[in-house]
Amino acid sequence: MKTNQVIGASARRVDGQAKVTGAAQFSDDIRFERMVYGKLLHSPYAHAKIQSISIEKALAVPGVLTVILADDLYENKDIGEAGSWLLAKDEVCYIGDRIALVVAEDEDAAEEGMRAIEVEYEVLPAALELEAAAQPQSPPSHTSRKTNVAKVLDFLRGDVDGLFAQADVVVQDHFVFPTLHQSHLEPNSAVATYVDGELTVYCASQVWFRLRHDLARLTGMPESRVLVKPQHIGGAFGARNEQATPVLAAIMAIKTGRPAKLTNTREEEFYNAHPSVEFQIDMSIAADKEGNLLAKRCHYYTDFGAYDVAGESVTWVACTRADALYRFQATHTIGEGIYTNRAPTAAYRGYGNPQAHFAMESLVDMVAQRLHMSPVEIRRKNFTGPNMTASNGYRISSNGLQECLDKAVELSGWAEKYNNLPPGKGIGMAALIHASGSRAGEKEFSGGSAIVKAELSGRITVFVGESEIGQGCKTVMAQIAAQELGLQPQDIAVVMGDTDQCPFSTGTHGSKLTTVLGNAVLFAAQNLRAQIMEAIQGVYGTGAVYLEGGFVKHQNGQVLDTLEQALYRCCVARSGQPFIGQGTFAPEADLMDDNGYGSVAANYPFGVQVVELTVAPSGKVIIDRVTSVHDLGKAINPQMAMGQIYGGVTQAYGFTVMEQNGLNEQGLLTGGTLLEYKLPTMLDVPEITGAFVETNDPYGPYGAKALGEPPIIGVAAAAANAYFAATGQRLTQIPFTPQRVLKARRDLEFAQKNPKPRKE
Amino acid sequence: MKTNQVIGASARRVDGQAKVTGAAQFSDDIRFERMVYGKLLHSPYAHAKIQSISIEKALAVPGVLTVILADDLYENKDIGEAGSWLLAKDEVCYIGDRIALVVAEDEDAAEEGMRAIEVEYEVLPAALELEAAAQPQSPPSHTSRKTNVAKVLDFLRGDVDGLFAQADVVVQDHFVFPTLHQSHLEPNSAVATYVDGELTVYCASQVWFRLRHDLARLTGMPESRVLVKPQHIGGAFGARNEQATPVLAAIMAIKTGRPAKLTNTREEEFYNAHPSVEFQIDMSIAADKEGNLLAKRCHYYTDFGAYDVAGESVTWVACTRADALYRFQATHTIGEGIYTNRAPTAAYRGYGNPQAHFAMESLVDMVAQRLHMSPVEIRRKNFTGPNMTASNGYRISSNGLQECLDKAVELSGWAEKYNNLPPGKGIGMAALIHASGSRAGEKEFSGGSAIVKAELSGRITVFVGESEIGQGCKTVMAQIAAQELGLQPQDIAVVMGDTDQCPFSTGTHGSKLTTVLGNAVLFAAQNLRAQIMEAIQGVYGTGAVYLEGGFVKHQNGQVLDTLEQALYRCCVARSGQPFIGQGTFAPEADLMDDNGYGSVAANYPFGVQVVELTVAPSGKVIIDRVTSVHDLGKAINPQMAMGQIYGGVTQAYGFTVMEQNGLNEQGLLTGGTLLEYKLPTMLDVPEITGAFVETNDPYGPYGAKALGEPPIIGVAAAAANAYFAATGQRLTQIPFTPQRVLKARRDLEFAQKNPKPRKE
Repeated sequence: MKTNQVIGASARRVDGQAKVTGAAQFSDDIRFERMVYGKLLHSPYAHAKIQSISIEKALAVPGVLTVILADDLYENKDIGEAGSWLLAKDEVCYIGDRIALVVAEDEDAAEEGMRAIEVEYEVLPAALELEAAAQPQSPPSHTSRKTNVAKVLDFLRGDVDGLFAQADVVVQDHFVFPTLHQSHLEPNSAVATYVDGELTVYCASQVWFRLRHDLARLTGMPESRVLVKPQHIGGAFGARNEQATPVLAAIMAIKTGRPAKLTNTREEEFYNAHPSVEFQIDMSIAADKEGNLLAKRCHYYTDFGAYDVAGESVTWVACTRADALYRFQATHTIGEGIYTNRAPTAAYRGYGNPQAHFAMESLVDMVAQRLHMSPVEIRRKNFTGPNMTASNGYRISSNGLQECLDKAVELSGWAEKYNNLPPGKGIGMAALIHASGSRAGEKEFSGGSAIVKAELSGRITVFVGESEIGQGCKTVMAQIAAQELGLQPQDIAVVMGDTDQCPFSTGTHGSKLTTVLGNAVLFAAQNLRAQIMEAIQGVYGTGAVYLEGGFVKHQNGQVLDTLEQALYRCCVARSGQPFIGQGTFAPEADLMDDNGYGSVAANYPFGVQVVELTVAPSGKVIIDRVTSVHDLGKAINPQMAMGQIYGGVTQAYGFTVMEQNGLNEQGLLTGGTLLEYKLPTMLDVPEITGAFVETNDPYGPYGAKALGEPPIIGVAAAAANAYFAATGQRLTQIPFTPQRVLKARRDLEFAQKNPKPRKE
Repeated sequence: MKTNQVIGASARRVDGQAKVTGAAQFSDDIRFERMVYGKLLHSPYAHAKIQSISIEKALAVPGVLTVILADDLYENKDIGEAGSWLLAKDEVCYIGDRIALVVAEDEDAAEEGMRAIEVEYEVLPAALELEAAAQPQSPPSHTSRKTNVAKVLDFLRGDVDGLFAQADVVVQDHFVFPTLHQSHLEPNSAVATYVDGELTVYCASQVWFRLRHDLARLTGMPESRVLVKPQHIGGAFGARNEQATPVLAAIMAIKTGRPAKLTNTREEEFYNAHPSVEFQIDMSIAADKEGNLLAKRCHYYTDFGAYDVAGESVTWVACTRADALYRFQATHTIGEGIYTNRAPTAAYRGYGNPQAHFAMESLVDMVAQRLHMSPVEIRRKNFTGPNMTASNGYRISSNGLQECLDKAVELSGWAEKYNNLPPGKGIGMAALIHASGSRAGEKEFSGGSAIVKAELSGRITVFVGESEIGQGCKTVMAQIAAQELGLQPQDIAVVMGDTDQCPFSTGTHGSKLTTVLGNAVLFAAQNLRAQIMEAIQGVYGTGAVYLEGGFVKHQNGQVLDTLEQALYRCCVARSGQPFIGQGTFAPEADLMDDNGYGSVAANYPFGVQVVELTVAPSGKVIIDRVTSVHDLGKAINPQMAMGQIYGGVTQAYGFTVMEQNGLNEQGLLTGGTLLEYKLPTMLDVPEITGAFVETNDPYGPYGAKALGEPPIIGVAAAAANAYFAATGQRLTQIPFTPQRVLKARRDLEFAQKNPKPRKE
């Protein structure tokens, strides 16, 4: 099959123009005639009993149509797991917990109505700190709970105690990885209509079909009469997996019979969306004197917040994934999920894996330091390799860790810089593993489906149920279909997530799209191509043909017709019926067993990241340069793949040195606005050098593996290792703020003045 | 195959609730952020040279963004045939001809800008009257035209002259059937966006894919990047076949890069949309003394208006179709299409056939009168029958004319009333033929395509490229799919006309949907059912199953599962991929040859209509009762079929006695508003008795034939025959207004006082 080579070329983003010109329509841009607007009342207390709710004054506000309370709902069990609700009835469990939804003719009336609701609370003691909440003496986060321990995972593989006992070196430390805001720029917003027995919801989501299911479940509608209509998405990063906003908009539409809109404020995004999971980590690694990593022990406390939305699932990933980076003979991991009186936590790019790597990759450097090995040497010795099964059950096909290490060393100037930088400057590295999608947590299956349609006008459309969340999926899928049909990406339309048009999808997460969905699109396009070529042979009366450069060609290379004209003729010959190619891909992947063992993905991406930094006298940590090298199997679109590196590294840079989502002693966020929650700007971002290692994995389309999450994973650990190189001290809690650096410096001076036996 | 019987049951309209509650979204309801608005400047003269257009003052109006003139267009050749344009450049040819399109930030600014445009005209003589315009001495309707005769059709079959020479009776008269407004309640409106190289147009249309083609042609876009998104449609009746509004909205969006809206006023609908074709008819019929109709001669003058939009196509139908009602041995028909300086004319329900029937069915009664036969007797003797080829080439399968006649006689009380009513009261009848779709005029093909999809949630969706224009097609297609899948109509979603989702369609016209599209949906649903049953057998490991009442059942009748759950399991087993059934139907039909001969449709519906009326002393014609009996093959939804009868009869009632679209001597409409254009209200509508004859045609789904247009066809003729019975006079021009009745009465009195030899 001869084709244009569009795979591996940097096609322009198919949705780029709309975004840069402002033409892209986001959910809040939608206006319907007779539309009603909603406003939520949230709890101002981290933990309280609701003694009474009085809505009379709210209903008296001109323009207010109704106030929806818990008792008005068809079903109140919220999206996610265990015990959460759409609207609180008797008790509120975090600042931001939803209590009432005011529906009004306009936003001002809704707001005024919300302020007129009178709620009497009995304030209760709150469990605000993660490790304290885990203790038996902590106040319960909900009055029905005997303990705040929500879930304990305990995965033991091999003779951990024996290996620790015989080890030459054991290193250990306590690490803190706090909760983060995903900082998607577009607050959640949804518009719903309920017409002729059909509920239609316009919104942003990573999980259109799961949302459809939740909409049906929570409204009592048959799922077959619920439609979700995707709008442009202003960032996701995991924050659009479990969403109350579209469900509440739907309830407003059903209750009023009018189109309804609900849009969060930025403050609501901080308080009432789902930030990432805080981790408190005790980890230790045992090694022999040759530097072989033998075993690892780990105890995570993870903050589920008030309810378990996705905290448990994040904990599973943290408990299992990172182990496949090295040839551990034994591991013991306890993941203890804790309820607190804080916002329920959920997914954030990396999904527990940056947390695990922050601890593990710090400890690996500590082993190297103890053995006077270099960070390069200890990693090279212990990395897993291709075509092997790791200790956690991952069946690793391709594995470019060694090549990534070589390239990272080369590109970062490691050899010249390591141990050679002036005081206050340091260089450090971290390796990483991730998965291309995940069988875990998807009860249905981990596969993907695609439809590629060609019709009479020559229009070729890819229909997939996933989301374009900025990662460039639309463009990648257009490239794949174009490659198979002898076209260019701009010749392909891509419709994503419309539940009436697209095949079912489990969602857009776990870095799965290029690999899993890409295969489905590949197979669908091939299926379509076969149908088209057969029809052409019939209609034109020729022998075998192939598609190239927008033309149909005879086997001898002669042009028979344009593909556009051939499609017209072939579709006319079948009364206008289009050609519909269907393709599915179901990776050979496992649900993890009760011991967290199993190969969850089609294949596994790897990487090595190097951070070079300066610790200023002021205590400010200035990251000078990040080198980020990734085994992504194959770069289908190198420019966009590089964009993933820039974006992931920048986010990781932000939480490594700047971003904080702290709570004060009442449970109020100290940073509930983007002014206080310090995101990096373009002026802050360090120099980033990205590079790829192409291992051409046998299970991905054209050899591709994942790249969506990997660039965020190793940066904090590499920065911690670089900080150690610069200062001789180890920071075990992000962000590395000037306050924390100055305190560490004072602690060191104090320790130097008051020597004690070293603990490590 | 056991199923619920949903065919023949009166399912509730699936789109009814949206319409009666006001929830239905029409094109003008759409709002986009940053939307711009358009306003057209029209010619105030029926014919003039444009000497200059100055837009400076318009551009100076605050909020005006641009003014689009003919020279700014990519392509100016308008929709439809020969010589028309989107925007006039040098010459305007009717009052309402478009000259300039003002684009502004809001509607008021657009309107003010439109009024500020300065145009200098040189007024030219206008050709306003149809027959006068046909004469060589008429001023030309366009300076480039040597004659206003646009087209002459001349169809001769058999020895017409010989049969007329040997006839015992020859009757002839001159008939006038004036132009009408289709009176769709929703003015044309369109919203367009141009984003990321894709043009998307939201509007109402009967021909989504033809519109897509025109949008591409007139904007220079590749057709594959143009999307048309159907909105609810506030009536069509033929008026939404050729539409400038969506094209102009698209041009606004492309020029400004912003969403754009253009909505007609009601006045613009009268002046600038396409009213129906005026006919001036000279017709004669020759018969022998036994009352056998031998031959027919006919000369039509038909008004194309300023350009040929669909006038020629309407003339073709008038020249050919009605002949298949009787066993004529020979016919000679001349159709002379004339350009005038009036609005271009196009389709209106019936499409030339009410005009032809008005003349022919009046003459048939005149033959009967001359031979002292009853209207029943002469028709019964001459009707075509089943399984024959008519003189015009129609291959008639089923033909229920005799049964329709029997039932109409019975239901109307004909036997008691004919010749027995008091003076001033009369009863009359007319028979009719129409076609279920038409091969004529569709260069691609006359067939239809449908996709029926079943997916994991249990949602079953019919995708078709036609329009729901109020006729109930959505409900009929839901019934057909439900019947085949063992469900109820409300279990089926129907998506119509979305060019990105639906298979290509030639459009919604010619009463073709139930028959042609119905078959396509039937075959698609059967194709889907076969796929689902095969998958169920695989997933459940059973033998043969069938679908009934929402369940999957074993051959022995035992319930295996719900269909919804079975779809979930089967779709999960294929990674979420839906089942997609495709079906096409291409009737064995011909393009007419150059002599207007050929069988254009899958099958042919027939009917007999009886009108009973009173002529008041004031001259007012009061239609007391209409009996309308139709051979529709099979009533798939009797209640909605009855609705077609009520609607068609009411429209025909309106133009028979009330509606007028007259021009004054300047070419200005005397009725350019709905206040002056007298539509019947509910208080005017006569008692209507509808009935069906079910002939179970072998070529329609479940035996169905067309019913969309037939009820409008015979009413005017039956009223003319009833008027004759009441008064002894023949009215040959509609509407039968008091003025016309009083004039006829005076003419009669004058003639009785001044007797002359009778002309007839």
